Amino acid sequence: MLTGKSVLIVGGDARYIELINQLSLFDATVYAIGFEEAEENLDNVILTNQKRLVKDHIDAIILPITGLDQDGYADAHFNDSSIHLTEEWLNEFPDHCLLFTGIMTPYLSELSEFTGRIIAFMDRDDVAIYNSIPTVEGAIMLAIQHTDFTIHSSNVTILGFGRVGKTLVRPFQGLGAKVSVYARRNDDLARIYESHATTIEEGQLIEAVKGCNILINTVPDLIVTPNVIRALPEDCLIIDLASKPGGVDFRYAKKRGVDAMLAPSLPGMVAPKTAGKILAHVIQTVMHNHE
Amino acid sequence: MLTGKSVLIVGGDARYIELINQLSLFDATVYAIGFEEAEENLDNVILTNQKRLVKDHIDAIILPITGLDQDGYADAHFNDSSIHLTEEWLNEFPDHCLLFTGIMTPYLSELSEFTGRIIAFMDRDDVAIYNSIPTVEGAIMLAIQHTDFTIHSSNVTILGFGRVGKTLVRPFQGLGAKVSVYARRNDDLARIYESHATTIEEGQLIEAVKGCNILINTVPDLIVTPNVIRALPEDCLIIDLASKPGGVDFRYAKKRGVDAMLAPSLPGMVAPKTAGKILAHVIQTVMHNHE
Repeated sequence: MLTGKSVLIVGGDARYIELINQLSLFDATVYAIGFEEAEENLDNVILTNQKRLVKDHIDAIILPITGLDQDGYADAHFNDSSIHLTEEWLNEFPDHCLLFTGIMTPYLSELSEFTGRIIAFMDRDDVAIYNSIPTVEGAIMLAIQHTDFTIHSSNVTILGFGRVGKTLVRPFQGLGAKVSVYARRNDDLARIYESHATTIEEGQLIEAVKGCNILINTVPDLIVTPNVIRALPEDCLIIDLASKPGGVDFRYAKKRGVDAMLAPSLPGMVAPKTAGKILAHVIQTVMHNHE
Repeated sequence: MLTGKSVLIVGGDARYIELINQLSLFDATVYAIGFEEAEENLDNVILTNQKRLVKDHIDAIILPITGLDQDGYADAHFNDSSIHLTEEWLNEFPDHCLLFTGIMTPYLSELSEFTGRIIAFMDRDDVAIYNSIPTVEGAIMLAIQHTDFTIHSSNVTILGFGRVGKTLVRPFQGLGAKVSVYARRNDDLARIYESHATTIEEGQLIEAVKGCNILINTVPDLIVTPNVIRALPEDCLIIDLASKPGGVDFRYAKKRGVDAMLAPSLPGMVAPKTAGKILAHVIQTVMHNHE
């Protein structure tokens, strides 16, 4: 619970509606800037602005997933315009005040007063694992939409066995797909084997994808090279879940006529409510640990 | 294999492209009427018309899923207009010639010469079970698209444990949903229990759906009554997979503000290629058995 705590939300997207409602359920006092157009969806939140806000008792500021851009602006989906946060304005918050952001940006890392008090939740393992759940559901949705065959009985190849790769295995198996996973570490290969999936070791990838129907990449390096794409059947679907710029040679995929899509940010798209709950849960945990 | 057999396809939708290609792979000689606009997607098929066709050696006629309407017309997605098949024209086929249709229609049941030789594949259990696979994938796609939360951790209630109901359980469990199934037969309840799902017995339905997030109906009778809908949380999604008119009181769902959708014919939508393969497999089996 966050009884007695005050939190300020500055900007954000659909996920932040649920985040605000959850923080309020955790009994925090919630102030929000940049949610004028979402008022009817919000309960127990104090809509305010930069001038009116009394900063003394704010324990945490929550910025959008995208943080602050190079000029200090915060994206606000439910507001006419972005919100400008100057370093001077930010420095007026109490010394213990935490600053949450989705990703770290150059502007944020230069806020010297906040050193050690900035939490980029997208860098956290727990958030990445929780978020992998809606990411995988989004990938399944795309796989069903963009193929004319069933996932059932298809050969699904997963590249990488990290936070998202691990989450992909069971749902695709539950749908009846034949799942293979490419990984390099021996302990990962052992876990893939234990999960009833087929292991693909380094050096075997090109041979292994020859019968692949759906290729899902989670590796943020160029791994789906022209050589790999050339080995794929032409009606294979490639879904790239890795962070931009992804791990797929999209130029070559297009040239070869293989359908390939970069699909980042699926949690906010397919399950903004769950994504907001995940953020609220992590913010609560971090605020407790910093007490 | 269908070596030495000749098959005539008259009209049909995207599934029939794959059906034609598969029958040709089974080594049948395939004639098709009503596929002028799909020529480039078809291999080894003889595009013909009613006049030109020599009927003597045709072993099976395959009509669209929708059969022939009250005036004898067959839907043809890849043709300018529907195709008219008169009783006289049909009677000129050999005595052993089988007539495949998706569903039986009044016009077809009045073709006295074909008594005992008409196969409505949508009435067959095997087709319904094979088709339940793409149906379930379509339901999963809709569930991901039309909710703002993940299927993971959601309460998913399935009504009915027939050909589609049985197929729904494992994929939703694989996604991490908490699955309950309503059924009336004791052996079905035992199988539901064995499948790690929660059983809902007769008389318990209203109580059981109080925490339901996604309700999937497969029962073709009005089972999702106003009383059931009233018990659902307001943000519950109802997906009705039962044949038209379905088993949901859509009028009341709308009045109550609960999102409800009738979703028949998912196989042709989400996986026309797989659906075509299923039909080809069944046609081959039936033709063998009739030899």
